[in-house]
Amino acid sequence: MTPFDLDPRLARDSDLVAHLDLCQLRLSRDARWPWLILIPERNAVSETFDLPPDEQATLSDEANRVAAALKRVTGATKINIGALGNIVRQLHVHVVARTEGDVNWPGPIWGFGTAQAWDKAERDDFLHRLTESLT
Amino acid sequence: MTPFDLDPRLARDSDLVAHLDLCQLRLSRDARWPWLILIPERNAVSETFDLPPDEQATLSDEANRVAAALKRVTGATKINIGALGNIVRQLHVHVVARTEGDVNWPGPIWGFGTAQAWDKAERDDFLHRLTESLT
Repeated sequence: MTPFDLDPRLARDSDLVAHLDLCQLRLSRDARWPWLILIPERNAVSETFDLPPDEQATLSDEANRVAAALKRVTGATKINIGALGNIVRQLHVHVVARTEGDVNWPGPIWGFGTAQAWDKAERDDFLHRLTESLT
Repeated sequence: MTPFDLDPRLARDSDLVAHLDLCQLRLSRDARWPWLILIPERNAVSETFDLPPDEQATLSDEANRVAAALKRVTGATKINIGALGNIVRQLHVHVVARTEGDVNWPGPIWGFGTAQAWDKAERDDFLHRLTESLT
């Protein structure tokens, strides 16, 4: 089996959190919103419907489990889920915690302003609570 | 069973195309992008993970079938799928055909500029081809 090739822009802009059954779960390095990214470990897939039906179902299930955990951990007003891929074509699903009054609320997060780095202690605490909530 | 209540903003900004098993499929009145919206006919649901697991799977399947048909019909560069709901909280999933160089490419469609009405003949032709591709 060909090893999975992660797009270098996804590798640069996010850090690995966990391997799920289908996806790698990553945390965006942009701390403006708690922002997770799910990437099915399949090469040459751009659209969700390019996956075989069983993997489409797994992707949906993993995205929903991650979204529910993110909501529990952050108490967010609304979870935003999006698969855009206009710039990075490797299929990836954003799962983002939005809170009333956050940066660019109620507009979308994509393409807005400049990334801001995480504080290391806050990041560690967030990831600890997230992985606890996921398991 | 309580009848389904469609949010008045979704009713105002889109037109019914078809009833699928779970969702009503609607076309945005904004013609800048071929823009479909799937709304599970369930009251008081905001997040995909609020649906029971079997309906989460159906929503994913319907969104993927609609996205694949939209890609076939438009020849789009990339399909964008998003469930945001920061403004309208009733769960709805956007499925949008994006083409290199379109309005705000490669940025997101949400919150950008001003809606533009469809030409009636173009809309009829698009919906004819879409429903044919879906069935």
